[in-house]
Amino acid sequence: MNTDELAELGQQLRVDSVRASAEAGSGHPTSSMSAADLLAVLLANHMRYDFERPEHPANDRFVLSKGHASPLLYAAYKAVGAIEDGELVTFRKLGSRLEGHPTPRRLPWVETATGSLGQGLPVGVGIALAGKRLDRTDYRVWVLCGDSELAEGSVWEAAEHAGHENLDNLVAVVDVNRLGQRGPTRHGHDLDAYARRFQAFDWHTIEIDGHDVDAIDRAYGEALSTTGQPTVILARTLKGKGVAAVEDREGLHGKPLPEAEEAIAELGGPRSLHVRVAEPHAAAALRSLTTEVVQLPRFEQGDEAATRDAFGKALAALGTARGDIVALDGEVGDSTRTEEFGKAHPDRFFECYIAEQQLVATAVGMATRGWVPYASTFAAFLTRAHDFVRMASISGSGINLVGSHAGVAIGQDGPSQMGLEDLAMFRSVYGSTVLYPCDANQTARLVAAMAGLDGIRYLRTSRGKTPVIYGPDEEFPVGGSKTLRSSEEDRLTVVAAGVTVPEALAAADRLAADGIRVRVIDLYSVKPVDAETLHRAAEETGCLLTVEDHHPEGGLGDAVAEVFGDGRPVPRLVRLAVRTMPGSAAPDEQLYAAGIDALGIAAAARMLVEEAVVR
Amino acid sequence: MNTDELAELGQQLRVDSVRASAEAGSGHPTSSMSAADLLAVLLANHMRYDFERPEHPANDRFVLSKGHASPLLYAAYKAVGAIEDGELVTFRKLGSRLEGHPTPRRLPWVETATGSLGQGLPVGVGIALAGKRLDRTDYRVWVLCGDSELAEGSVWEAAEHAGHENLDNLVAVVDVNRLGQRGPTRHGHDLDAYARRFQAFDWHTIEIDGHDVDAIDRAYGEALSTTGQPTVILARTLKGKGVAAVEDREGLHGKPLPEAEEAIAELGGPRSLHVRVAEPHAAAALRSLTTEVVQLPRFEQGDEAATRDAFGKALAALGTARGDIVALDGEVGDSTRTEEFGKAHPDRFFECYIAEQQLVATAVGMATRGWVPYASTFAAFLTRAHDFVRMASISGSGINLVGSHAGVAIGQDGPSQMGLEDLAMFRSVYGSTVLYPCDANQTARLVAAMAGLDGIRYLRTSRGKTPVIYGPDEEFPVGGSKTLRSSEEDRLTVVAAGVTVPEALAAADRLAADGIRVRVIDLYSVKPVDAETLHRAAEETGCLLTVEDHHPEGGLGDAVAEVFGDGRPVPRLVRLAVRTMPGSAAPDEQLYAAGIDALGIAAAARMLVEEAVVR
Repeated sequence: MNTDELAELGQQLRVDSVRASAEAGSGHPTSSMSAADLLAVLLANHMRYDFERPEHPANDRFVLSKGHASPLLYAAYKAVGAIEDGELVTFRKLGSRLEGHPTPRRLPWVETATGSLGQGLPVGVGIALAGKRLDRTDYRVWVLCGDSELAEGSVWEAAEHAGHENLDNLVAVVDVNRLGQRGPTRHGHDLDAYARRFQAFDWHTIEIDGHDVDAIDRAYGEALSTTGQPTVILARTLKGKGVAAVEDREGLHGKPLPEAEEAIAELGGPRSLHVRVAEPHAAAALRSLTTEVVQLPRFEQGDEAATRDAFGKALAALGTARGDIVALDGEVGDSTRTEEFGKAHPDRFFECYIAEQQLVATAVGMATRGWVPYASTFAAFLTRAHDFVRMASISGSGINLVGSHAGVAIGQDGPSQMGLEDLAMFRSVYGSTVLYPCDANQTARLVAAMAGLDGIRYLRTSRGKTPVIYGPDEEFPVGGSKTLRSSEEDRLTVVAAGVTVPEALAAADRLAADGIRVRVIDLYSVKPVDAETLHRAAEETGCLLTVEDHHPEGGLGDAVAEVFGDGRPVPRLVRLAVRTMPGSAAPDEQLYAAGIDALGIAAAARMLVEEAVVR
Repeated sequence: MNTDELAELGQQLRVDSVRASAEAGSGHPTSSMSAADLLAVLLANHMRYDFERPEHPANDRFVLSKGHASPLLYAAYKAVGAIEDGELVTFRKLGSRLEGHPTPRRLPWVETATGSLGQGLPVGVGIALAGKRLDRTDYRVWVLCGDSELAEGSVWEAAEHAGHENLDNLVAVVDVNRLGQRGPTRHGHDLDAYARRFQAFDWHTIEIDGHDVDAIDRAYGEALSTTGQPTVILARTLKGKGVAAVEDREGLHGKPLPEAEEAIAELGGPRSLHVRVAEPHAAAALRSLTTEVVQLPRFEQGDEAATRDAFGKALAALGTARGDIVALDGEVGDSTRTEEFGKAHPDRFFECYIAEQQLVATAVGMATRGWVPYASTFAAFLTRAHDFVRMASISGSGINLVGSHAGVAIGQDGPSQMGLEDLAMFRSVYGSTVLYPCDANQTARLVAAMAGLDGIRYLRTSRGKTPVIYGPDEEFPVGGSKTLRSSEEDRLTVVAAGVTVPEALAAADRLAADGIRVRVIDLYSVKPVDAETLHRAAEETGCLLTVEDHHPEGGLGDAVAEVFGDGRPVPRLVRLAVRTMPGSAAPDEQLYAAGIDALGIAAAARMLVEEAVVR
């Protein structure tokens, strides 16, 4: 398109943004209007994308990091013919695909859910990294950012990662409209302030007037011809551009225009330009990835092994069998054992350094391209990426997260490293799977099984060695459990997982020696949970004693209680969990102090039996 | 101290780091050895601190951001006479104050718990900001960082904040030893790479050899005389410095030295130098802060008001009554209503922009200086700061966090903005308090009450208006509840909080019209929870139906279930919660779709009664 056509298209996107928001009675038209010219020129003259084949492997990828500018995105979908005008005005209404913030669950052209600021660029880095090092296809990743969101540290994790990885297939476009939600941003229209920051992180920077379509056009051309480093286009724009009543004014964030009809007239009225987006470059050869039966590591029953060790070995084996598996490390791969994968498959191993938000975002980005990522760090430090996990679940992203060094069982390092909230965090994520194996063979099986699940899958591993109690051919369906001790005389049921399983078994043996029989269930699948087995245990033993190396809230105890949250009779429920703030001590001292070792379990069970609380 | 003495002191700190780790059989001596000279020169020649009076208002503040270098810190405590040599060798043992990573719960000279990397500098920024704008005392904040942790985005949130606020009372010292846990860092010994980044964020930078005590001495002097901007000293060091077997070698992170005796000999053997740390400058005049009876806003029963509005008004009123209250905003103060405080008390209002980690870290930093911070953003976005909240709880920090726009009740903005995991997140934090008011008067009371609590206090507010159901003089003790409907014929108890309280009341009235009486409890204190009232309701009605605008895991349903986690008989428990992924829709449509509105509650209650599940 030429200058006049581009300007017209920009106005059309503004008009449609205003219209959609006016119909909805809410939304962010002013944040859309500032970026309209940027998106118009991108679509008309630079992006390569087949809207009828969003899965096309050579399509460019577009991420609207400033997700609140959804009216602009939907106006663009209309301009390219992906949606009809009639759908545009369903914006933000019940049942519409056009949500307040875009999500790939509903729209095939959306790569990742946005709306929590500072996440689009990190995910874009993940996609660009996939393009460079996995897909090896020359698609380009375009990320449209707001200026306010550059205050998020995650943006600078992404900037560091992209600069270091020389991602010249990545272009960030920053709509510097100088106004945040509440008022002016830190740097206002000082484009140089942003440029200095990006340059320091080894980016190529271009500063332009974001309403000069020729300048925008040239900037995109320059970005496309820049090699060896990512490019950021810093565009000076005006919020509410084109309508005097709202242009560059404070206090109008996230509000429909007060006089929509007049605003549309001022913008020159509705238009019906159609944009023909360029075809993607010829598709790369289809990936031919290994898919063999996985040869999982096998551990001898009676030996001891750490579940983190089993995870590392199993992941490496899975990577051998399946060419679509990738591993991401948060600079602790020697501890999580992800380094086993790195040694076996260096081309599919990605070091994300100590930047857990970027770690998860890289996984999300790679998953959009069909890769199956396993991202690992200490369980405690995955809390750093909670918001990214939350948004990934909104995206419907299929990623595997593995948290090692869970619980007080780590011992001397103390509470900062312990991960006593991770089960609560991952259970509360929509559609998640939460697995917590107790032995090496179980771990290996679950590592392989999780690859095939939907949504966020979390595996919790342990630092220290635990006895191998299962044979290598035992199966562990997700949603299942293992009943390890059972008799008709069971007075209660101990429900354990991970490091508390061997403790529960030892407690059961001690109690049995005293004539007290208790059932022991290994609830390795914390979500979904084996309701049937728990119901049966409740009926047969009347009391469930949960034992977890986790704070009492939201973890194993809650998982068990929730099974009885449907009105049926509830058994007696007793929770053993970590209720104090641990310090440094040996692992066995820690378990003892928390009352979740064999002694603590046996004492609790004995008290319940002796006080005739249970039958 | 002169050059030779400083070098000797550095060696002493190394020897004691090696000794402590050797005794413990774990720990991070090599990470301590790289920074030993940096700390030696700081203590001997530049820091002003009275170790006998850690609460002295004019004391400098020191934060060990690389918390794993705790052996070095404890060696320094010994050198200044704060601890004995006998205590030094209790490092990492059961009951010792000298934990694997330092915490202020146990040691009075520690400002904030570290061990999750990238948190020390953000908290240091909070302390420095308090020094400049609240305490108005010329103490200096020294933060010793590792180089690996500069990959954390939170460090760049802090850098941006400090540069923008011209915090020339803040000095970051980076121990650039080039080796992370797993291997080399991104930038190795390229000090310029770090300098460019900090300069871009408007810091003064100094690059030195971190083992040249004279250079270190000059750098501290230069930092002390730098005005108008924070200073970072980038020090080139060697991990394991001074012991050939480990110096600058990979694979030795977090491990005691293999041959401790030989290493100590190589370092010149034990020494017993005593460092006399300079006295703090004369204390500033004691703060004379307003403390009056708070005149909370009063709302008329029968009116409607949003709890976020009540929060804003109450916080402003609290700020009028108490001069120690400060408010921090994540650039959404117009939505959270924190801006009410900003208008009334601009000198105690801090804009943290869209940087939730820095938002919480600023609160933690200010709390170390005795201020009572309220930090607010959308409930959803507090997940961004989960790890900071976790670490704050390890510190024992007393901070107030307020999350607005909770739940599907926000309506059209969609799931990215909803906050459906926040109750689970905050409940799982050790020692936390979780409050969720349903009306404006209740909110106002709880806003005032939370200021006086210990630990992490979380208040959840709502976007839309709800009926004012309580009078302005009603009291709401933390740990209490309100029984809003009760009779001897109650067939079950509906337990609600926040937006589901008016829905529960409407459901109860509908059911009563059909002759079905149900009890209604407003469980505004989600943690601690009113166990007594719930036990009584269980005994008297036999069934508790929890209704929450939150995912089913870890929230209100769990809070109620946990009350029965001690072996006593458990009532029937039924959970209504948000079990699907919401899209955009009006607030009432959202509540209906989730089944947590009056219709959904009444239908569930009717089903339970009609199917004779309940008596």
